[in-house]
Amino acid sequence: MEYTRIDYRKTFDFCQKVFEFYGFSKEEAKDITDILLDADLSGIESHGVQRLIRYYHELTDLAYVDAKARPEIVKETPLSAAIEGHRAMGQLVGKFAMQLAIDKAKKNGVGMVAVRNSNHYGIAGYYAKMAAEEDLCGVSMCNTESIMVPTFGAEGVLGTNPIAFCMPAEPKNFLFDAATTVVPRGKLEVYVKRGNGLPFGWAMDETGKDSDEGDRVLKNIIEKAGGGILPLGGCGELTSGYKGYGFGMIVEIMCGILSQGATSNHIAREPGHVNTSQFFMAFDHGMFGDKKEIEKRLSVFLQEVRDSKKAEGADRIYIHGEKEYEAREKVLSEGIRVNEKTLSEMKMIGEQTGVEFPF
Amino acid sequence: MEYTRIDYRKTFDFCQKVFEFYGFSKEEAKDITDILLDADLSGIESHGVQRLIRYYHELTDLAYVDAKARPEIVKETPLSAAIEGHRAMGQLVGKFAMQLAIDKAKKNGVGMVAVRNSNHYGIAGYYAKMAAEEDLCGVSMCNTESIMVPTFGAEGVLGTNPIAFCMPAEPKNFLFDAATTVVPRGKLEVYVKRGNGLPFGWAMDETGKDSDEGDRVLKNIIEKAGGGILPLGGCGELTSGYKGYGFGMIVEIMCGILSQGATSNHIAREPGHVNTSQFFMAFDHGMFGDKKEIEKRLSVFLQEVRDSKKAEGADRIYIHGEKEYEAREKVLSEGIRVNEKTLSEMKMIGEQTGVEFPF
Repeated sequence: MEYTRIDYRKTFDFCQKVFEFYGFSKEEAKDITDILLDADLSGIESHGVQRLIRYYHELTDLAYVDAKARPEIVKETPLSAAIEGHRAMGQLVGKFAMQLAIDKAKKNGVGMVAVRNSNHYGIAGYYAKMAAEEDLCGVSMCNTESIMVPTFGAEGVLGTNPIAFCMPAEPKNFLFDAATTVVPRGKLEVYVKRGNGLPFGWAMDETGKDSDEGDRVLKNIIEKAGGGILPLGGCGELTSGYKGYGFGMIVEIMCGILSQGATSNHIAREPGHVNTSQFFMAFDHGMFGDKKEIEKRLSVFLQEVRDSKKAEGADRIYIHGEKEYEAREKVLSEGIRVNEKTLSEMKMIGEQTGVEFPF
Repeated sequence: MEYTRIDYRKTFDFCQKVFEFYGFSKEEAKDITDILLDADLSGIESHGVQRLIRYYHELTDLAYVDAKARPEIVKETPLSAAIEGHRAMGQLVGKFAMQLAIDKAKKNGVGMVAVRNSNHYGIAGYYAKMAAEEDLCGVSMCNTESIMVPTFGAEGVLGTNPIAFCMPAEPKNFLFDAATTVVPRGKLEVYVKRGNGLPFGWAMDETGKDSDEGDRVLKNIIEKAGGGILPLGGCGELTSGYKGYGFGMIVEIMCGILSQGATSNHIAREPGHVNTSQFFMAFDHGMFGDKKEIEKRLSVFLQEVRDSKKAEGADRIYIHGEKEYEAREKVLSEGIRVNEKTLSEMKMIGEQTGVEFPF
């Protein structure tokens, strides 16, 4: 597939105007775009501008997203809130919920916010980073349509269920952001497109066996015919797949259970009925001691990990977040990498919305 | 090796009296024993009475534990505390810290407590369960001597770094308790004793390669000659070992960094100088809605996971904690499983302390 690079600033303006067309205020459209393109800036193209087509459909014919809806606090304490998402745009719900957690953490030390009936909110790491920008620690999780098969199971019951954690450090914040499955669905799709078999340890066929047959696995997932993606740790107990399955369960609890919303096995993707659950937390590490001293200790530790002995053939040990921060500089200077398909989708969306396509 | 079963109650009395001999009050000795034997009751024999010999040495010739020391709060807010462990018995520090987190959660909704300069505290799950017994959600983590090799590294920098999470549910609480390495060191030792090669995906040799040579890996670990145990997700990036490495990093942050104590790469095991770090959290899920309704939703979800499609050849999907709760009934009725070595160590400790050996 042909790839080209498009200017970040022009792409931002284009997306923002598209979202304004669908009824979001200037500020809201800017936030949605900022979160969408933060994925491209982080080198996570799967969640970036190539998903614009998805939001276009979810706002129009699919009607997953209610562009007029806004999140509502249904229960609140000084440290917590439960939020009804009302099927609003996931990025708006996420930003609202994380800001609420941050405000509570700034005032009282800790903020925990659980959300139900939301939509896809982009990359989990964005929200964790919001806390770090306010000199707090941040946590974000969300569930998804079910695709993770529990240990000894043969069908997806849990979602890919990412967990993100961010804490301020020098020269760059520590930023962990990972699905609790071995890989996301997009990675299977890339392998299948390339015509390669899957590595064992990624996915499971409909009988419950570790499978390298990508076509079969994807077909089953689409038809909900059993099988799915393995939890971190792989198939069965030998390499401790029940641990990844457990982390996935914790995400279901913090998101779907605490919010009294849907767990992944009940997430629907039908017009007028979408119900992703999310969780956000911020806490002030200054509750435990001098804040700058604690951050300095983290920065020193991160450098010790970087400086530890490398495997033969490896020249670098990465700290979580480094690859993302380094991608940012490249994308800002060289542009967002998109393929022909994404470009033509953007062009079509421009025509539909009357927003000038800048490329 | 020969195994035999010994009565739980008699073992409890014996251990309690041994700890009383070393200067702990009746109540303290009871708590230490309760935590020690909770591992046996949970079917986690590696952390149970077979470790009595270890505590014996740590209280006497090794002098890792200061039997006279008690934990001290060095910083406190309504939601948090930082605790100096003063090298006190890890179980006493852990129980004190988790009780403090529970008290804060009961009063204010959330309690977070970070501990430095503590000792081994037994199974992480015990402390998470303490919160669930008070109808709260509980979290516990600890770091250990460094043994986990970061992705692309070739020496242990992080510990096995377990994470435990417990939430009330029917018929049994959800209880996750897992090292963030693929396996604990004890599991390598069992394979080596049996004369078997290690499964690939567990451990790494001193050059940074995935290794099945258990003897070589263990020798390197003992001599600190490089290599170690792999993070959950395995070697390199193909099966996402950087995610297990990331969970291990989060444990270092919550334990060693927040407490301003030691990260695993600085944990010493020398007389008069031990410095494990721990973290405890309790929160009231009633902050998000009706407590009983939330617990009921969890119980329903757990049953849905149990009832989902099984892999061919599997007849059951386990919820985290079920194996532990089922082991309990067996151990209480049939006794704790110990080998000859443990029995003779207990006998020796009985002679040294003047406590009658009951078997």
